[in-house]
Amino acid sequence: MESVQTLSPRATQNVTVIAAGSETTDVLAVEEPLEIRLGFEQAGKPVHRAISITMRTPGHDGELAAGFLFTEEIIHAPEQIRQIRHCGLKIGRQKGTLDRAAALNSNTIRVDLADQADIDLKRLERHFYTSSSCGVCGKSSIEAVAATAMPLAQTSGRLNGSVLRQLPAKLREAQAVFEHTGGLHASALFDMNGTLELVREDVGRHNALDKVIGAKFLEGELPLSDKVLLVSGRASFELVQKALMAGIPFMAAVGAPSSLAVDLAMEYGMTLVGFLRGDTFNIYCGEERIA
Amino acid sequence: MESVQTLSPRATQNVTVIAAGSETTDVLAVEEPLEIRLGFEQAGKPVHRAISITMRTPGHDGELAAGFLFTEEIIHAPEQIRQIRHCGLKIGRQKGTLDRAAALNSNTIRVDLADQADIDLKRLERHFYTSSSCGVCGKSSIEAVAATAMPLAQTSGRLNGSVLRQLPAKLREAQAVFEHTGGLHASALFDMNGTLELVREDVGRHNALDKVIGAKFLEGELPLSDKVLLVSGRASFELVQKALMAGIPFMAAVGAPSSLAVDLAMEYGMTLVGFLRGDTFNIYCGEERIA
Repeated sequence: MESVQTLSPRATQNVTVIAAGSETTDVLAVEEPLEIRLGFEQAGKPVHRAISITMRTPGHDGELAAGFLFTEEIIHAPEQIRQIRHCGLKIGRQKGTLDRAAALNSNTIRVDLADQADIDLKRLERHFYTSSSCGVCGKSSIEAVAATAMPLAQTSGRLNGSVLRQLPAKLREAQAVFEHTGGLHASALFDMNGTLELVREDVGRHNALDKVIGAKFLEGELPLSDKVLLVSGRASFELVQKALMAGIPFMAAVGAPSSLAVDLAMEYGMTLVGFLRGDTFNIYCGEERIA
Repeated sequence: MESVQTLSPRATQNVTVIAAGSETTDVLAVEEPLEIRLGFEQAGKPVHRAISITMRTPGHDGELAAGFLFTEEIIHAPEQIRQIRHCGLKIGRQKGTLDRAAALNSNTIRVDLADQADIDLKRLERHFYTSSSCGVCGKSSIEAVAATAMPLAQTSGRLNGSVLRQLPAKLREAQAVFEHTGGLHASALFDMNGTLELVREDVGRHNALDKVIGAKFLEGELPLSDKVLLVSGRASFELVQKALMAGIPFMAAVGAPSSLAVDLAMEYGMTLVGFLRGDTFNIYCGEERIA
């Protein structure tokens, strides 16, 4: 696993634009669909099934798929995965004729589960939060997380406010090569001293976080106790939910959190910081972990 | 229909935060789940079915539901809708006991279709873009839009660049009451003279656009020829797809477009502008409509 972003040659694309009346070249963040397929045994027979299509920026597709399957609670341990590979495109009428070059540019990734993997197939059918008897509400969304997220571990110490303030600049530096596209969300993991461990970028903010969590999941490094997560945009309910699944005790956002993001973080004792910009930040909950 | 944003009392929420070491009050954008249910007749019997849960900011839920159903291609004309109403929460064990106050705060909205509404029930089962024979790719995503989006009408004139430059300030002004939450995406419709017709806000950018399109759909005002759409963030494939469904010829984004957003806009002859900030903007395609 590379500790810092390695760009896929497919992650950006040049286009001609008209700016101030004349033609010039602009660099765009690439957005392409990724189909995630799951391969497993059912009643002794191998089957594979498409379970999701997400619009993503190519690169780290395997991490994205693993992170998605983990944060969607379809798998829970890296040992459940036998292999992850891009599918080649079938060319012509002969089955099994694969174009190798096409496979490298493939937008389909297949996660083959280990034979003994015990997955909850019903989750594949379930596209909604289950409505609780009180109806759909923020409270029932929070309770749905309770059923599966692991409790946060005790952190070994408090996070220094001055360390926190340096994180956005470190993220921007790591993102520098992408900065001019202006089109990418980033998720980054730091240790308690503010050292950058991992950064991933994507047109979708959920994808950027799934890539980070998927990378650590595949390395067997969950839960991510004593780590600080920084997201480039706003903090939503779903981002906090994913961070909780990975056991991350500190989450900071450059932008604003939503009401439900704060409620969820508070319920699980996570430290949530918002508006981390320049020299200031707001602590929404878990202030006892910040020095 | 209100031409400009009317705030739901549930759209914001006050919380206590710690900023610069001391407690203060911050205003958050509310994020709550909305369950959209569809009521219709099947084999002579009334049925209703939950078809989506989206995380949204309360307010204009009916427009959001209508816009979602239209841009997801489940319904295509306002006459197909008999009524839209929030569902009350059942209190206690007696079925049918509704709490009226709870209904107003409900996170479930039900769209009842007219008896003769001819909807494609199979679309309700379909959660993915259909894979074309060439596999999943940007091209197949664009082709999927072709099957349903109406062709853009001829516009009655060209849009003045100076009108375009004024739009972000007008949007910010209309958003002023929300500006301090920093947590909301906005979508706004302007006429060719730059007069603001409609603005909607939401924690989710797709929702903000679905609310705008849903409002106009319910008024029977589609296609939105000669209208300019401004979105507060970036332009993604899905936002361009929704705008095309509504027949909007001009789309401008304060942020960057993605590669696939540009490809889709180009394919359908839409004018797409990005980085509309200060006095500058980039035209990615359809420059013949800008003077």
